[in-house]
Amino acid sequence: MHTSPLSALRQWLQEHHLDGMIVPRADAWQSEYCAPYDEKLAWLTGFDGSAGLALVLKDRALLFVDGRYQVQARVQVNMDEVEIHHLHNEPLAQWLENNVEAGTRIAFDALLMTNAEYTQLSATPCELVPLNASPFDTLWTDRPAAPAGQIREMPEEISGESSADKRQRVAAILNGKTADYLAITLPDNIAWLLNVRGSDIPTSPVPLSFALLNRDGNVEWFVNEDKLHALPASVREAFTVSPQDDFIARCQQLAHGKRVLVDADSAPVALRFAIEPEGEIIWQTDPITLMKANKNPVELAGYRECHHRDGAAWVNFIAWLTREVPQRQAAGNPLTELEAQAQQLAFREQQPGFIEQSFATISASSSNAAMCHYHSSEASNKAIVQDHFYLNDSGGQYPNGTTDATRTLAWGKVPPQQRLHYTAVLRGFLSLITLQFPSGTQGHQLDAFARRPLWEMGLDFDHGTGHGVGHQLLIHENPHRIAKKVNPWPLVAGNIMTIEPGYYLADSHGIRIENQVEIVESRPGFCSFASLTLIPIDLSQVELNLLSEQEKQWLDEYHLKVRETLSPRVDSDARPWLFEATAPIRVTR
Amino acid sequence: MHTSPLSALRQWLQEHHLDGMIVPRADAWQSEYCAPYDEKLAWLTGFDGSAGLALVLKDRALLFVDGRYQVQARVQVNMDEVEIHHLHNEPLAQWLENNVEAGTRIAFDALLMTNAEYTQLSATPCELVPLNASPFDTLWTDRPAAPAGQIREMPEEISGESSADKRQRVAAILNGKTADYLAITLPDNIAWLLNVRGSDIPTSPVPLSFALLNRDGNVEWFVNEDKLHALPASVREAFTVSPQDDFIARCQQLAHGKRVLVDADSAPVALRFAIEPEGEIIWQTDPITLMKANKNPVELAGYRECHHRDGAAWVNFIAWLTREVPQRQAAGNPLTELEAQAQQLAFREQQPGFIEQSFATISASSSNAAMCHYHSSEASNKAIVQDHFYLNDSGGQYPNGTTDATRTLAWGKVPPQQRLHYTAVLRGFLSLITLQFPSGTQGHQLDAFARRPLWEMGLDFDHGTGHGVGHQLLIHENPHRIAKKVNPWPLVAGNIMTIEPGYYLADSHGIRIENQVEIVESRPGFCSFASLTLIPIDLSQVELNLLSEQEKQWLDEYHLKVRETLSPRVDSDARPWLFEATAPIRVTR
Repeated sequence: MHTSPLSALRQWLQEHHLDGMIVPRADAWQSEYCAPYDEKLAWLTGFDGSAGLALVLKDRALLFVDGRYQVQARVQVNMDEVEIHHLHNEPLAQWLENNVEAGTRIAFDALLMTNAEYTQLSATPCELVPLNASPFDTLWTDRPAAPAGQIREMPEEISGESSADKRQRVAAILNGKTADYLAITLPDNIAWLLNVRGSDIPTSPVPLSFALLNRDGNVEWFVNEDKLHALPASVREAFTVSPQDDFIARCQQLAHGKRVLVDADSAPVALRFAIEPEGEIIWQTDPITLMKANKNPVELAGYRECHHRDGAAWVNFIAWLTREVPQRQAAGNPLTELEAQAQQLAFREQQPGFIEQSFATISASSSNAAMCHYHSSEASNKAIVQDHFYLNDSGGQYPNGTTDATRTLAWGKVPPQQRLHYTAVLRGFLSLITLQFPSGTQGHQLDAFARRPLWEMGLDFDHGTGHGVGHQLLIHENPHRIAKKVNPWPLVAGNIMTIEPGYYLADSHGIRIENQVEIVESRPGFCSFASLTLIPIDLSQVELNLLSEQEKQWLDEYHLKVRETLSPRVDSDARPWLFEATAPIRVTR
Repeated sequence: MHTSPLSALRQWLQEHHLDGMIVPRADAWQSEYCAPYDEKLAWLTGFDGSAGLALVLKDRALLFVDGRYQVQARVQVNMDEVEIHHLHNEPLAQWLENNVEAGTRIAFDALLMTNAEYTQLSATPCELVPLNASPFDTLWTDRPAAPAGQIREMPEEISGESSADKRQRVAAILNGKTADYLAITLPDNIAWLLNVRGSDIPTSPVPLSFALLNRDGNVEWFVNEDKLHALPASVREAFTVSPQDDFIARCQQLAHGKRVLVDADSAPVALRFAIEPEGEIIWQTDPITLMKANKNPVELAGYRECHHRDGAAWVNFIAWLTREVPQRQAAGNPLTELEAQAQQLAFREQQPGFIEQSFATISASSSNAAMCHYHSSEASNKAIVQDHFYLNDSGGQYPNGTTDATRTLAWGKVPPQQRLHYTAVLRGFLSLITLQFPSGTQGHQLDAFARRPLWEMGLDFDHGTGHGVGHQLLIHENPHRIAKKVNPWPLVAGNIMTIEPGYYLADSHGIRIENQVEIVESRPGFCSFASLTLIPIDLSQVELNLLSEQEKQWLDEYHLKVRETLSPRVDSDARPWLFEATAPIRVTR
């Protein structure tokens, strides 16, 4: 007889004298993208969104998901077995407070829960029971293997600073705080500190692992040996290597009388249980998060260079689209989103050094683009046609940097209202990208510039305006954000951000224009944005009379730079399109 | 033999076995403007700035003041007796931590210290000793009398809502939080709740007092009887009246087993000492602060109407200046700042209903205007001349509202660089005042619009961009601010704010343009600013070619409204100037 995952888990809970269990989507690193090994929530409930958690009780199972996933969850889970709740409107802690009797024993995995989450839940009447062993190790019989991606060196000529120097800089911060250890639980911070990159998760080149840095700058790296075969001995020997699973126990051993700095936002509460009985935790943002965001000159040069290659791939792709879309439409066999993204990947793969995509491409035609986080499938795959917008948001991992850009394109006439929307998004983009601002200004102070042209029309977009981007690392790198939400981190020269306003009308169309930018000092005490992204911006759908002279001038100068930088690099059959697409506004329009 | 205040205090401390005392500038309400009775710090040290505190020890006396007052403090205090320290760079708590031995007995007045301040200080090694009686009652022999300003009714036809209804609304909030009492320590909140206004402090019509509201909406008002002679019996009988000094003791009596809501930002720590032994404090922003900021239709109509009167006084004043400044300059006897502000007050006093100024006028010529908080004195009084900017920031208290506006004027040719500064300030003002934004947007999200034209020139100004304004109440009303600093309170239709960017170049000139505005719903879900202030904006110093068409259109429409509204109200000899100053840009310039 077949037993459902839910039934199997319930039986396991009963055998262990537990009344329920919390199963989050999270892995031990609170990763945005998880390895298949960590998709316990999808195995248990069928829901495979990027955020959410289940509460499994004896007679009820609840799935908490946010606003983005209310529809998807209802499609994916068996609603006879699982109730859907709203992750923010009715948080788990509140639900437990209102629905569970005092003393109800709820199990959880302390590696998968942050201290903040635990603190909230521990205020409820239930008894939280940390597990020593995960039920999924035994119940999930066809569980994918734990990620074992090979780790590679990030040479100093690309990273711009030796690991030894970085470790000394972090150690100096520990000394300044009279902390004894930094417990590093963020894999991208480990990648930066040790000058390595991983391959556990596609598009996210982080080495899933943990690390402990002491006040002398020495590192014990908790990483599985079988990931290290590709790492030069000289790199590996700079660190003490221990099995990943020893991390929590080692923290416990070392804790007595010590002060340990732990990332307040993401570290697993398991660290608290390990350290606090004998030692002291200093909860704060891992200092590496900010150090890593201030790119050095070698890193900055790398970002600029890899954008030349990525820009050439984009130009080859858009020139190809510009030929194919009308032809295929005329032939009654229009191009599709999936064909386009496959061809785009082929163009990127032609670029020397291209490693992989930096995130799953968004290739979205007409109404599909109204879903901000859309990904094409055979079922959703739409035709790309002349009179509808096509939105492409994609990027690449290169040895010397990570790229992320969005263009929205059309080859015919979109409806007049959509032209106005496109023009408003472009004006918001231009308003922000042409800004000069005092060094140290915070993202939330700048966000509204990108929204104002939409606000003037009584419109807005429901996502952030910009995010940090890693250096051959995560596509969404902390801590900087340009968004409505307060972001306390000052923006300074050397930060890498995106600028990406958009507009989305459900069931109709979606528009986004995104450049990756470097923050540069424009004069003493002031900064501006310098575009790394070099891709023509489609002006065929713009109401040019709504642009200011300053905005037109920026576009002309930008397109001149795109043309001059990329024309030697693009395929010869793409060059005519590049010249047309980058012609000055006053000349041709 | 004459004994200095410091020596007298030191002797008193010795007699009371105390090692020192903290003497803040604050009164029991943390008022921005204090009564002379409360100027203990000025009596003790000579320093009469609006923020600061002294720490008097046996052998040292320290005055802590912020950046604004570093110069003034050095002028005013006897530097042989008093050391000047920086209030923010080296806060008192940090100084005590580093310089005072454990157990040092430091006295303080628990009515003059907030809970947040006390919490910081109590983490230091010294022993904080709350005083039962103030030494100033005996030592300060010529101390001014305690304020005893008469309290007047704010009739419902002006306030728009009966006190009974307001009290029921606040009581409903208490019930929602299962709180038993609201301890009201903010005099402007008492004024709003009880529909009264006071006269303890010039320009700030608040009744210095305390109040306790219970869950039934009943109020015990702790106010000195001798302030109530002018209050109709019908008003007075709606409340239980007790002596002001009974407030803390009553809170202590009532506290047992009760939950008391207390303003987290401003309430004296004396309340904590009174309530916490037996009851529970709910620390949060007094709910009245937000209720009061959402003006009702009657209040809004009052603001609009009183601005007609204040605008007429402004026009009479500027027309007079426009005649007088050149004439007096030609006669070799130029007009002065003090003469101008006296004449301006005379024009305001001609307006029916004018009560008093809403704050001390800033009447500042040329380099005096570079000091944001300048007030003219006989010593500082400068001439107002044609080729230099003159800045006037002033306002009035009227029965139905409070006004606040700034204009910067010149009658000749200011240097070209100053024209560019003036144009940039105007463009920032126009950018913000023409904005449409989603209802609920917060002030820090909008602030940068007012700064961008200055930022483009590598300049900025070092004050907030806008503040709330009371209804025949405080000129700086909480909680809304438009500023760089995060302000969490959503801006919604019915809020009253100022918009006042500026630019200041030390020893040269100062520029500020300020309108008071009402936030109105412009379309569902969106808001915009409607000007309450009706005063021509000086366009003679503007580089008009730097303004957008939209900005010029706003100015023309604004000036048309100023002209049409005020021409029937201004003096006949001011009318020609009004017509000239409000002519459309395209026609005359």
